[in-house]
Amino acid sequence: MKVTFQIEGASPVQIECNAGDNLLELARRANVAIDAPCSGNGSCGKCRVKLVEGQVESIPSRHITDEEYEAGWRLSCNTKVLGDCTVFVPDIASAYQSRMKTADLSSPKEIAIFEDTKAGLAASGIEFTNDFQALDVVMDAPSLEDTMPDNERLTWAIKGCEEVEQVHIPFTVMSKLAHTLRQHDFHVCVKGRWDADKFWCMDICGPEDRAIVGCAIDIGTTTVTMVLTDLETGKLLAKGSSGNGQIRYGADVINRIIESTRPGGQKKLQDAIIKDTLNPIIANLCRTAGISARSILRLSIGANTTMNHLLLGVDADPVRMEPYIPSFFSWEGLLASDLKLPANPLAPVVIAPNIGSYVGGDITAGTLASGIWDKEEMSLFIDLGTNGEIVFGNRDFLMSCACSAGPAFEGGDISCGMRATDGAVEACTIDKTTMEPTLSVIGDPGQKVVGICGSGIIDIISELFRCGIINARGLFAREGKRVLRDAHGMGRYVLAFPEESETGREVSINEVDIDNFIRAKGAIFSAIDTLLNSVDMTVECIDKVYVAGGIGSGINMKNAVNIGMFPDVELEKFHYIGNSSLTGAYALVMSDMAITKCAEVAANMTYLELSTYPGYMDSFVAACFLPHTDRTLFPNSVQE
Amino acid sequence: MKVTFQIEGASPVQIECNAGDNLLELARRANVAIDAPCSGNGSCGKCRVKLVEGQVESIPSRHITDEEYEAGWRLSCNTKVLGDCTVFVPDIASAYQSRMKTADLSSPKEIAIFEDTKAGLAASGIEFTNDFQALDVVMDAPSLEDTMPDNERLTWAIKGCEEVEQVHIPFTVMSKLAHTLRQHDFHVCVKGRWDADKFWCMDICGPEDRAIVGCAIDIGTTTVTMVLTDLETGKLLAKGSSGNGQIRYGADVINRIIESTRPGGQKKLQDAIIKDTLNPIIANLCRTAGISARSILRLSIGANTTMNHLLLGVDADPVRMEPYIPSFFSWEGLLASDLKLPANPLAPVVIAPNIGSYVGGDITAGTLASGIWDKEEMSLFIDLGTNGEIVFGNRDFLMSCACSAGPAFEGGDISCGMRATDGAVEACTIDKTTMEPTLSVIGDPGQKVVGICGSGIIDIISELFRCGIINARGLFAREGKRVLRDAHGMGRYVLAFPEESETGREVSINEVDIDNFIRAKGAIFSAIDTLLNSVDMTVECIDKVYVAGGIGSGINMKNAVNIGMFPDVELEKFHYIGNSSLTGAYALVMSDMAITKCAEVAANMTYLELSTYPGYMDSFVAACFLPHTDRTLFPNSVQE
Repeated sequence: MKVTFQIEGASPVQIECNAGDNLLELARRANVAIDAPCSGNGSCGKCRVKLVEGQVESIPSRHITDEEYEAGWRLSCNTKVLGDCTVFVPDIASAYQSRMKTADLSSPKEIAIFEDTKAGLAASGIEFTNDFQALDVVMDAPSLEDTMPDNERLTWAIKGCEEVEQVHIPFTVMSKLAHTLRQHDFHVCVKGRWDADKFWCMDICGPEDRAIVGCAIDIGTTTVTMVLTDLETGKLLAKGSSGNGQIRYGADVINRIIESTRPGGQKKLQDAIIKDTLNPIIANLCRTAGISARSILRLSIGANTTMNHLLLGVDADPVRMEPYIPSFFSWEGLLASDLKLPANPLAPVVIAPNIGSYVGGDITAGTLASGIWDKEEMSLFIDLGTNGEIVFGNRDFLMSCACSAGPAFEGGDISCGMRATDGAVEACTIDKTTMEPTLSVIGDPGQKVVGICGSGIIDIISELFRCGIINARGLFAREGKRVLRDAHGMGRYVLAFPEESETGREVSINEVDIDNFIRAKGAIFSAIDTLLNSVDMTVECIDKVYVAGGIGSGINMKNAVNIGMFPDVELEKFHYIGNSSLTGAYALVMSDMAITKCAEVAANMTYLELSTYPGYMDSFVAACFLPHTDRTLFPNSVQE
Repeated sequence: MKVTFQIEGASPVQIECNAGDNLLELARRANVAIDAPCSGNGSCGKCRVKLVEGQVESIPSRHITDEEYEAGWRLSCNTKVLGDCTVFVPDIASAYQSRMKTADLSSPKEIAIFEDTKAGLAASGIEFTNDFQALDVVMDAPSLEDTMPDNERLTWAIKGCEEVEQVHIPFTVMSKLAHTLRQHDFHVCVKGRWDADKFWCMDICGPEDRAIVGCAIDIGTTTVTMVLTDLETGKLLAKGSSGNGQIRYGADVINRIIESTRPGGQKKLQDAIIKDTLNPIIANLCRTAGISARSILRLSIGANTTMNHLLLGVDADPVRMEPYIPSFFSWEGLLASDLKLPANPLAPVVIAPNIGSYVGGDITAGTLASGIWDKEEMSLFIDLGTNGEIVFGNRDFLMSCACSAGPAFEGGDISCGMRATDGAVEACTIDKTTMEPTLSVIGDPGQKVVGICGSGIIDIISELFRCGIINARGLFAREGKRVLRDAHGMGRYVLAFPEESETGREVSINEVDIDNFIRAKGAIFSAIDTLLNSVDMTVECIDKVYVAGGIGSGINMKNAVNIGMFPDVELEKFHYIGNSSLTGAYALVMSDMAITKCAEVAANMTYLELSTYPGYMDSFVAACFLPHTDRTLFPNSVQE
């Protein structure tokens, strides 16, 4: 028999199945993304699908009302297929977006971190200057005595006001030259770029429009963030973020690559990121900044290797298949028009270079932003995203590796996860005796709880562990008013009972949430451990730890160490540097020098392939405990 | 009241009118192109339109059968509008095409002339070499021990087999790199271009496809001709021609510019030349040559200033309006992708430079081809097309001007005009006494007459004049069996009565045909005369006359002098050089040196604007006689 998934915003997908198969598992097998942060145990109620036709059998759930059930809504994790059927799957991108946390410069705190990082880069000698310029050009109008053609007239006028050997006027400017010159009485603004003593025109417009803008983009597997900056002053003009539209084709890079190899798949994945994701954000940011998209004269991209390949419409399959060969690490000469991005068609698109199949431009951009390439002290750089990437080294050497952490750090895998906005638990302490929590909730005083953001999750798990409420495996070890169990015996800790919460629904963290998080932190720590081992170093060698990613500025490093996520070093060594991929992309778009330096950093970085590295799997398994099977690694971790 | 013209292959056009207005004249006012070589005197029968609805009054015509009349067909020149009506206008481009003569290298004679001209250029030092190359590249396949990304692998392989500092791989190649390398087991052909010690890749394909092709295009106002050439050997791979699809928007450049200024007009005119004209010819030629369009690595265009502007979608209106300012004379950096031409998207499109509003790239390309820029002797270069252009000078100076000749030289204005194919009268003598013609007809022995091609027209008019059958004004002065008059008294000379012709229809030349031709030849001669005067020279100074254009290799120079079309110099000074714009374009596509030389030639050429030059109009009026009002200019012209 067959199940047809009608996916919102995508083509339908069919899969063969047997009677009794679980619908959520079938969806996963068919690579249909269904939002299921509790991983299918029925607790989160988010894996809703709507039966269009056919026969299924569902266990009733408190998450589906009678009216909804009548209308065909079911939890896919609770549903068995009984015959041929068709189900509608809502768009997962918008679901994810409501939970994701991403450092998108939307708060003053994030902007302060961004400015700090930028100042650090400047201190390392990176000048935030570039070759783009808007020229004010005034010409004599032509007459019967002065019949010079328009392009020569413009060239001479530019030569008259600037030291320039050669002026290059491209097709896009030529095709509107006659009209623009006459519309503005031969007084225009010419935007373009210097290349030694040549000037490459990129746009011509009225004398009042002098905006020259850069667009820095961080493309994460789950989230995309972007800023517009004034190329002259470096001022941030607008900023924004959204979910990566590719998410409906798979939550991780591997599933997306597989999807891209199907007929028309490359185009579909490229459209999902360009048309469905980047273009709307850019349009939105241009509106906010009050500029025309043609004023965007350079773009920069910090993205992992797979995202770079899918963005460019380049075959990504060899990245996935042994011997894991990307089409490119670095690549010069890409233009906005190649990708049909809403920007000046001649705007160069600077791709932060990849250094391996699983350490990409987001990490080289982030490493650039961290400044560790300029320091003598040994630094550890940790980027927490759907993939976790680790860089270790100093001005003399840099080692890097990647591990798959899943969407936990972006709130994607946590049933009550949410963005760090009003109602989010961002910090938590628990009284060991009463087991009652004290919550720090984002918002005005009196704000009730809606969910949990990234920094809150670390605190809660750390506190549950410290109080002995959960054991080293993340399972509940104590009973009490706030520790409940469902019909299957799965435990959860209630942060807010329905009557205490904003929404009237319980806010809790369950064993699946905790297990997801432990595996994510285990992947990170074992990657750090393996990377240090590979260069014969230990935790003691670490002078600085730079933490990047969307997990938030409010992260309690002590708690992160307490649960064995980060190595047990002095707390003052930790520095949260926000979305370093975006900061790095900002540097690349603003600074010609940063482009050169980033290429150098990438060229000097050694890539360690963990999946084939002896001992990594053992290290991972050992790290999937609180704090670790080897407690001596975490002398400061406490379970009271 | 209103007339609506439903134009085949174009948008409908409406015009206000009064009862009794002539339909052909209304069409002309509305800039609707209707085929009317006899200029509306009812003799050619080609201005057929079909009444869709409304009331008109038509004079019956032998050209419309009863069945056709019933179906609504009318001669527009014979039709008066009586009320609101709608008429269907057949596509004029195909009508023109059946009559046009263009030197499109379709005959061995034309190819011989082309080869001669090319040999002359080589003798002038132009090397037919360029920087394009197809490289055979073999790489090691990647392995776990050799994980270099594809683009670096390719770069190193090219560096391994060539002396090259830098290899540039563009987006179009990157996006198919992974697939192509694996499809061909890392043995590929890379097509591209050298730029000093850099190699710019343009395409990557299997090792067997080594074609690198140039496409040379002559875009005339009426006709377009094209050749494909092997960029390595210079061999002609395919050749073809067709009518310029813009003709439905006006027969001359002025009407087309006006049309282009209407809403959407620029795009419409650009589509007419690119989508409707160039693309089908290129596709056809690629099929003939057995190559893929991606193998076309360079294109060159010889076209007049207006054609260049309309081709590029650049506002042409300032070319038409005082002070007559083009957007550009010369322009570098244009790519096939800018025009969406079916070729390698990175193929440069070399535009032969314009030197004035009415002396364009077709003339600079033609002048290049003529070789007159390299000679000490004084040469006159005459290009006969819809516009006639004249260049005079030598290696020290070059003067040029343009005049409007109309489509007569391309057969467009002659009622029985046709291409120089089977059945065309290509030469003619007339017995003065009997007034009987002796015709030379193209085709096998016994081929009957179908119509008259360009060289035939010159002969016929010259012979009619020599025999005193027509007078100096082109009006019939003798009566006889072959001199007939219609109801209005208009005379014609019958070359073939219905029973003598191939088609069963009379083939003749009438006073309107002759008048059209006299005005065309008058425009040419007066332009030559004015240009010589402007540099204080006379006919005696001319050492060589190079005649270019579609009028054909069979042109009888003696007769052309006899009717006052060309200056009366020794016949051995005349050289027919065929379609010199196409030959020049061929040189530009094949030879990097030709591009440089053509720019030099253009830079050294002075443009004389005839329309404002004192005395030109008088000179034109004086030249509209056979041979001229001043017979002393033509001592060798005879009227026996």
